[in-house]
Amino acid sequence: MSAVLAGKPDKNLILVSGRCHPKLAADVAKQLGIDVMGTTEYDFSNGEIYVRYTESVRGADVFVLQTHAGETINKFIMEQLIMIDAAKRASARSITAVCPFLGYSRQDKKHLGREPISCRLMFDLLKAAGADRIMSVDLHAAQSQGFFDGPVDHLVAMPVLVDYVRDRLDLSNVAVVSPDAGRIRVAEQWAQRLGGGPLAFVHKTRDITRPNKAVANRVVGDVAGKDCVLVDDLIDTGGTIAEACKVLRDAGANSITVVATHGVFSGPAVDRLKACGAREVVVTDTVPIPQEKRWDGLTVLSIAPLLASAIQAVFNDSSVAELFDKYPTHHGQGFLFA
Amino acid sequence: MSAVLAGKPDKNLILVSGRCHPKLAADVAKQLGIDVMGTTEYDFSNGEIYVRYTESVRGADVFVLQTHAGETINKFIMEQLIMIDAAKRASARSITAVCPFLGYSRQDKKHLGREPISCRLMFDLLKAAGADRIMSVDLHAAQSQGFFDGPVDHLVAMPVLVDYVRDRLDLSNVAVVSPDAGRIRVAEQWAQRLGGGPLAFVHKTRDITRPNKAVANRVVGDVAGKDCVLVDDLIDTGGTIAEACKVLRDAGANSITVVATHGVFSGPAVDRLKACGAREVVVTDTVPIPQEKRWDGLTVLSIAPLLASAIQAVFNDSSVAELFDKYPTHHGQGFLFA
Amino acid sequence: MSAVLAGKPDKNLILVSGRCHPKLAADVAKQLGIDVMGTTEYDFSNGEIYVRYTESVRGADVFVLQTHAGETINKFIMEQLIMIDAAKRASARSITAVCPFLGYSRQDKKHLGREPISCRLMFDLLKAAGADRIMSVDLHAAQSQGFFDGPVDHLVAMPVLVDYVRDRLDLSNVAVVSPDAGRIRVAEQWAQRLGGGPLAFVHKTRDITRPNKAVANRVVGDVAGKDCVLVDDLIDTGGTIAEACKVLRDAGANSITVVATHGVFSGPAVDRLKACGAREVVVTDTVPIPQEKRWDGLTVLSIAPLLASAIQAVFNDSSVAELFDKYPTHHGQGFLFA
Amino acid sequence: MSAVLAGKPDKNLILVSGRCHPKLAADVAKQLGIDVMGTTEYDFSNGEIYVRYTESVRGADVFVLQTHAGETINKFIMEQLIMIDAAKRASARSITAVCPFLGYSRQDKKHLGREPISCRLMFDLLKAAGADRIMSVDLHAAQSQGFFDGPVDHLVAMPVLVDYVRDRLDLSNVAVVSPDAGRIRVAEQWAQRLGGGPLAFVHKTRDITRPNKAVANRVVGDVAGKDCVLVDDLIDTGGTIAEACKVLRDAGANSITVVATHGVFSGPAVDRLKACGAREVVVTDTVPIPQEKRWDGLTVLSIAPLLASAIQAVFNDSSVAELFDKYPTHHGQGFLFA
Amino acid sequence: MSAVLAGKPDKNLILVSGRCHPKLAADVAKQLGIDVMGTTEYDFSNGEIYVRYTESVRGADVFVLQTHAGETINKFIMEQLIMIDAAKRASARSITAVCPFLGYSRQDKKHLGREPISCRLMFDLLKAAGADRIMSVDLHAAQSQGFFDGPVDHLVAMPVLVDYVRDRLDLSNVAVVSPDAGRIRVAEQWAQRLGGGPLAFVHKTRDITRPNKAVANRVVGDVAGKDCVLVDDLIDTGGTIAEACKVLRDAGANSITVVATHGVFSGPAVDRLKACGAREVVVTDTVPIPQEKRWDGLTVLSIAPLLASAIQAVFNDSSVAELFDKYPTHHGQGFLFA
Amino acid sequence: MSAVLAGKPDKNLILVSGRCHPKLAADVAKQLGIDVMGTTEYDFSNGEIYVRYTESVRGADVFVLQTHAGETINKFIMEQLIMIDAAKRASARSITAVCPFLGYSRQDKKHLGREPISCRLMFDLLKAAGADRIMSVDLHAAQSQGFFDGPVDHLVAMPVLVDYVRDRLDLSNVAVVSPDAGRIRVAEQWAQRLGGGPLAFVHKTRDITRPNKAVANRVVGDVAGKDCVLVDDLIDTGGTIAEACKVLRDAGANSITVVATHGVFSGPAVDRLKACGAREVVVTDTVPIPQEKRWDGLTVLSIAPLLASAIQAVFNDSSVAELFDKYPTHHGQGFLFA
Repeated sequence: MSAVLAGKPDKNLILVSGRCHPKLAADVAKQLGIDVMGTTEYDFSNGEIYVRYTESVRGADVFVLQTHAGETINKFIMEQLIMIDAAKRASARSITAVCPFLGYSRQDKKHLGREPISCRLMFDLLKAAGADRIMSVDLHAAQSQGFFDGPVDHLVAMPVLVDYVRDRLDLSNVAVVSPDAGRIRVAEQWAQRLGGGPLAFVHKTRDITRPNKAVANRVVGDVAGKDCVLVDDLIDTGGTIAEACKVLRDAGANSITVVATHGVFSGPAVDRLKACGAREVVVTDTVPIPQEKRWDGLTVLSIAPLLASAIQAVFNDSSVAELFDKYPTHHGQGFLFA
Repeated sequence: MSAVLAGKPDKNLILVSGRCHPKLAADVAKQLGIDVMGTTEYDFSNGEIYVRYTESVRGADVFVLQTHAGETINKFIMEQLIMIDAAKRASARSITAVCPFLGYSRQDKKHLGREPISCRLMFDLLKAAGADRIMSVDLHAAQSQGFFDGPVDHLVAMPVLVDYVRDRLDLSNVAVVSPDAGRIRVAEQWAQRLGGGPLAFVHKTRDITRPNKAVANRVVGDVAGKDCVLVDDLIDTGGTIAEACKVLRDAGANSITVVATHGVFSGPAVDRLKACGAREVVVTDTVPIPQEKRWDGLTVLSIAPLLASAIQAVFNDSSVAELFDKYPTHHGQGFLFA
Repeated sequence: MSAVLAGKPDKNLILVSGRCHPKLAADVAKQLGIDVMGTTEYDFSNGEIYVRYTESVRGADVFVLQTHAGETINKFIMEQLIMIDAAKRASARSITAVCPFLGYSRQDKKHLGREPISCRLMFDLLKAAGADRIMSVDLHAAQSQGFFDGPVDHLVAMPVLVDYVRDRLDLSNVAVVSPDAGRIRVAEQWAQRLGGGPLAFVHKTRDITRPNKAVANRVVGDVAGKDCVLVDDLIDTGGTIAEACKVLRDAGANSITVVATHGVFSGPAVDRLKACGAREVVVTDTVPIPQEKRWDGLTVLSIAPLLASAIQAVFNDSSVAELFDKYPTHHGQGFLFA
Repeated sequence: MSAVLAGKPDKNLILVSGRCHPKLAADVAKQLGIDVMGTTEYDFSNGEIYVRYTESVRGADVFVLQTHAGETINKFIMEQLIMIDAAKRASARSITAVCPFLGYSRQDKKHLGREPISCRLMFDLLKAAGADRIMSVDLHAAQSQGFFDGPVDHLVAMPVLVDYVRDRLDLSNVAVVSPDAGRIRVAEQWAQRLGGGPLAFVHKTRDITRPNKAVANRVVGDVAGKDCVLVDDLIDTGGTIAEACKVLRDAGANSITVVATHGVFSGPAVDRLKACGAREVVVTDTVPIPQEKRWDGLTVLSIAPLLASAIQAVFNDSSVAELFDKYPTHHGQGFLFA
Repeated sequence: MSAVLAGKPDKNLILVSGRCHPKLAADVAKQLGIDVMGTTEYDFSNGEIYVRYTESVRGADVFVLQTHAGETINKFIMEQLIMIDAAKRASARSITAVCPFLGYSRQDKKHLGREPISCRLMFDLLKAAGADRIMSVDLHAAQSQGFFDGPVDHLVAMPVLVDYVRDRLDLSNVAVVSPDAGRIRVAEQWAQRLGGGPLAFVHKTRDITRPNKAVANRVVGDVAGKDCVLVDDLIDTGGTIAEACKVLRDAGANSITVVATHGVFSGPAVDRLKACGAREVVVTDTVPIPQEKRWDGLTVLSIAPLLASAIQAVFNDSSVAELFDKYPTHHGQGFLFA
Repeated sequence: MSAVLAGKPDKNLILVSGRCHPKLAADVAKQLGIDVMGTTEYDFSNGEIYVRYTESVRGADVFVLQTHAGETINKFIMEQLIMIDAAKRASARSITAVCPFLGYSRQDKKHLGREPISCRLMFDLLKAAGADRIMSVDLHAAQSQGFFDGPVDHLVAMPVLVDYVRDRLDLSNVAVVSPDAGRIRVAEQWAQRLGGGPLAFVHKTRDITRPNKAVANRVVGDVAGKDCVLVDDLIDTGGTIAEACKVLRDAGANSITVVATHGVFSGPAVDRLKACGAREVVVTDTVPIPQEKRWDGLTVLSIAPLLASAIQAVFNDSSVAELFDKYPTHHGQGFLFA
């Protein structure tokens, strides 16, 4: 008899989903050729969440998918944290928090003293709950990857969006426009992808003490007669985009296509977008967009193939970077140093 | 000139409050002779929370009070975590999370495999955000103190409740009743406080797979003709209490007084309690009870003096234990070992 | 030539044992079809412990079994910590501390201010030494699982004990009795397993300041003429059990069978149990019971098959929960919330 | 006799300096009215650094000042880490790493897969060595504050620079220019401070795979006849600035004033700046600028008063934010969300 | 009313003691002008330890003194860990573990593969329990200070011992002898202190696989006619010392004085020392030496003044190093590099 | 469709190298039958280091080899830390820092108050960057292994050196000499390996306040007519060795062979060694020795086979200890306790 028992080296991939965006989880699972694993999830009368996995996750690489959106965004965050805790205590081999849209990702620095850095807090909470790795799409600032003490798979939706837009516009007449001065880098990258056309941005004066209020002033750059592609990482209330559209129209733009990764669409967003004069608004489904928030001018592209590829690569220890090596990251500044 | 600059050793106590129960914070502050410090707190359109302290907390002992209650309980938890992060990054000397009712405190163990231990998770999240110390009232299980790697001030509301009840009943005819077998210890302590009268409990059969559903069976112990004091740590949907009252009435109880620390009152609780036949329901205000959830038979005692005393003791490094030494903790088993 | 060298994915299970209960380790190993791995362990003249593994543990899943019992309980705890440190520094892939009886598990909360929470400390020490996972049987409070920041396999001996008792009693005449008010839950579960018979408990008055001294008062519930099964998690000095037996006999019980998971049997335990009038005392061998502490009325059931099954399940990443799904945990309250 | 010995609550501030920029440390100390504390620091023959404090730091708030600059930048980083370790082991009460220019602060995200995030690493190393708090000036991205799990005092040199420039230009004819698209935010803030004049930026095409090489294209915005203020956070090799100056001159600028916080001046920087046609180059002394790198057109402003004020505020627990409340941070976007 | 409550900055020193060496604690307390604070400490029947502080330690600097000695050395270690846990949970401001003799300090490296580094484990356990700082006397290797991630006050008994010996010998005829090759450094330092006389050591052949067994061979150096001072850090079983004495006598030594910091005296130590032919054996009382282990030729010097001075210095934030600056540490090699 | 995706259990070994000693990395890789994996590494103008892996390291066991030597030793340390960070963020399965010569390993304790323990700091930095395991050769003190909270593979070069020396000397006439009193243990082990000949050491008086200066006095032990093997762990400036040679020659040694693991050779080392009168100086190539530092009397043995064997053993989870079991470690004291 030996002092050692040899085992078999299977490893398994399991995908579980919170209740925010089950459709996306199902789409990702379908791409992977599996089912979303069953979980028991409900709310107690007092609002506390109950979660239990209905099958064993012991020894598996568990991917806990939850996007952070909707009126109960904080509840969905808590739900994901609880799901991660349950996976940790059930002896998962590794836990990846998949957050297609990461809540609080815009609060990534202190603008004034005595503010939180809520985006860093999000990473800390995910780690405290037991996540070994984070996967997300188009964080507001690429620096936020560094908030996590471990691997972050920062996926980029630009390839998906560019592929769609490229076929629908006359590239020789395109101008790429940034809705504000802080995102010109992204516009630069779009311009490069779309054949090197001209670039513009909207120069605003802002009242720093009252968020979500912005006063668009004027376009810097030439857009008259151009088919403008107005690019941003996310559309929240639609205010910035709507005002940019107005300025572009005033400046003689021929058409406007609005493109963004995350269609958060909160508050008056849908009404503003419908009325903004854009030919088309293009987003991905990192955030669930219910039927009542959809209209004819809206196109929603599926992010599931991208997420599934990345999950598969993580599981198989193949390179995620390769998925993007052909496209330098759209947050990238092109050079490390100026 | 010296290589050393000597400073002054002031230290300051600051109390800030989340938006769940501002009235309680104000009451505590009043007891301390200070104001709740001003904070800017609001929700963005997409539901994310913004917090900023309006005054400096640098070097202060900051107490961040938030009870975890209401339909948006998860949001209030997130808000407290964000407030703690902000205090940490604003150089508070120490941060105490004051959670009069701690959310998820009942999920303190795994009943089945693959469940979370959400109560432990709560302590982990508070620590990850930056809390150095936790203060709470009547955690569901006293063991939960051990979930935190640091000091926990576990306050006991029993003295407040006993003082109120004692004056209103003929102690020679009182029987103390536990609504279920798991809480008989507490009933024992009540019986001791109220003069050593008889003890009883309700013996239930439960269906382990469906929470919040309980079937009361019968009283163990003699309650006929007695003025029963039915004691529990919290009242959530009121189902357990209502069924216990029915059984007690069937068993010939003369009157029933219901007593609990936390009046969570979710779902059908108020209707059930109004109809349960109790002479009076007594709770503290660890959880906010809006006007529409109050009725004539309900008495709400203030927990603010207790919280204020404990905060003061923490700040002055005086003994919190002394506050309770006269009353052995109601979770205490009387002996360490059976 | 490639930049990558591919390896073979063997993984191995190794069981090592401290010196407290080598018989149990041998029994577990036998169930697993392996030998306990050899170790060099002795004491230096000044009482310090020396440990060395005689074979390589590099890359293996190492299970370090030590129960915490006997006069030198603290030495056995230190020995396990040292063994874990040695395994960590010898590059074990994972380390599971197997503590059939976990020392200090009853000191799981503060009964009075300025006490330790020694049970939490135990988990902290095991983690500091390098344990990735804890396996134990019937912790005094199920909440203690939450003291560990990682997976805990909390095994339940009730199935083993119930199987034995069920065949030896006339279930139609059985009453299940809890020796004190704090353990009625367990009695409820036993009653359910044994066919739903009546339930009783012993109501004691205790002097909270002097441990190990308890004064039994009276039985709550009807036991006259019944075959009583008196259930507890552990028997230490036997005082509680002996007094309960006396009260049961006075109340007209027909027979008494005493059942507990851990036969700690310290101080006057054996004499008390021999004299208590019980027909039989049934425990498992989580704690070693030397020949001189055994008598005719004592039955010691083997816990080794349960431990071996759990170790095998951990190693194979199969579900430990399944071992118990047929039996809801005996600490379980049947419902999450009252 | 009592069981307690009461002590005196003195607290002390101590400033120590590495060998990179002793002049700045001396200037800061002078502002604070103290001396830099003596240290023994030298290199062993094999290049290892030796450090020892010549006076006690026990119980003091120690500020360890080292800027990260010069050819031996990595050595200066190691020196600061060693100094922090020595302070930790010598029982300092708190340790603040003061890094006027933080090395690697530009490597704050992954531009390509399999890169480090060296800026996050810097914060991790400072923490591992024992720093409780970080103080720095104008980090490349404000998000980097979030890399530290604790308080970061992120100081802003803009007020110092603006004060100087404002008095030397005819504000009615000023245009503020960003040397690249990524820094337009800063230019916006400068424009606001200088009276709201027009804004421009230089639009470059970059080859993302070859760092430090940039091809300036054209000015976006109108600068003809204007007195241009060209603003950046740091000047490294001077390439970006030199090319921007050329483009501005070609576009008919009347004059150019170059302003930056950090005068890193590596490689060909001085030659390029001398030849770039700017009327004046204005930097602070966060980085030491030796006499041979100075020329007539260069103005170096002292950052010492700002550092001293912040250190004093940290020590006295007064608000650092107040130092900047009159100037919203220059990295601030004015709004939290676009 | 203000939002801030100002407090008073008292700080307090409290000394508590485990049960290993209460006499030493009392002596230290006397030197400090206080009492040892009262604690409740006893063993439960099954050997578990109970500890409670009888007064508040909130906000105090608590020094938990326990030497690690005697047959139940492991129990005393556990007791100290439990005391530290209790102090942490009772809100001590800082906790210093005072271990005059630190158990396992000789197991400070791996001599063979698959051994523990038990000395490092000791520091890890003390930290896990909650110690902020360690104080000890003459660790076996000075490197062990580095095992703790925080301040260690490593005290040196040599000054105490040298002062005693110097007055009792004719320094012109003294030779300092190391009982084995590994401790010659210490002997060098003694020689320096005692006027620079000759140095010798005993050259042994050892059997590496059987601890505590050593075979002395011969003296290297000249001791004929000399008054030998045989110095070591500790005397455990006395075997090494006894054999060295024999060799010295054989080599014609005139007299032998044995000196060591820690008189562990385990197993046959006392008999061996009585019979070894030394004129006097001198140790300190870091380890308790009961009356039955004392004999005429033994001198026990008090270590209490040294411990008290160091505790006072820690509390007052004055320099501990100064206590020893006059005596370079006896583990010191004189130079950093050879 | 299943809820689980099964994967394949490949694991891979990757070796990457910093820029200090690429030849050694190439030699190790050759022994392993692989290539060193390609990396992009260069310095920016301001001295910051850029690193990127050119192939995926996801899921691999990555060995990051860097020796710490040369004038820019601190830069090489930083480079290794950055490489480890990059590997961590690129999802390596495990990261081993291979440091053939570990910088600062001699600063392993505090000789005076207020010094750092830079060797412990090195381990802390490597851990903070992301190293799971450390591999090094002949640390100055074996205790330093305990500075790391995890496995350390401490390799021993003595077998390599002994094999070389044994064949070149008449063992019957050999004396082994330690150049100072602190290293006699090593000399003892050499003496044992070389057939048990006589042992001697050089007794120095040192000025403790001025490092790198030592005054050799006299030989203790008999070396006249002997072929002396002078052994040390490293040769830095060569001062100690040169003075020892002089004393040995004066004492009538027949020949001197100098042997050391690490040929650091800083400052005047080469000149001193050439002139010291030794027949041969033998070192390994843990540190790169450029052609201009080599001379006829120098022999450099390859350490690559030893490193490769250890790396292979770590990767295959086979025993590293076995590599050395035949040779008790040369730091080993032969016995655990004196």
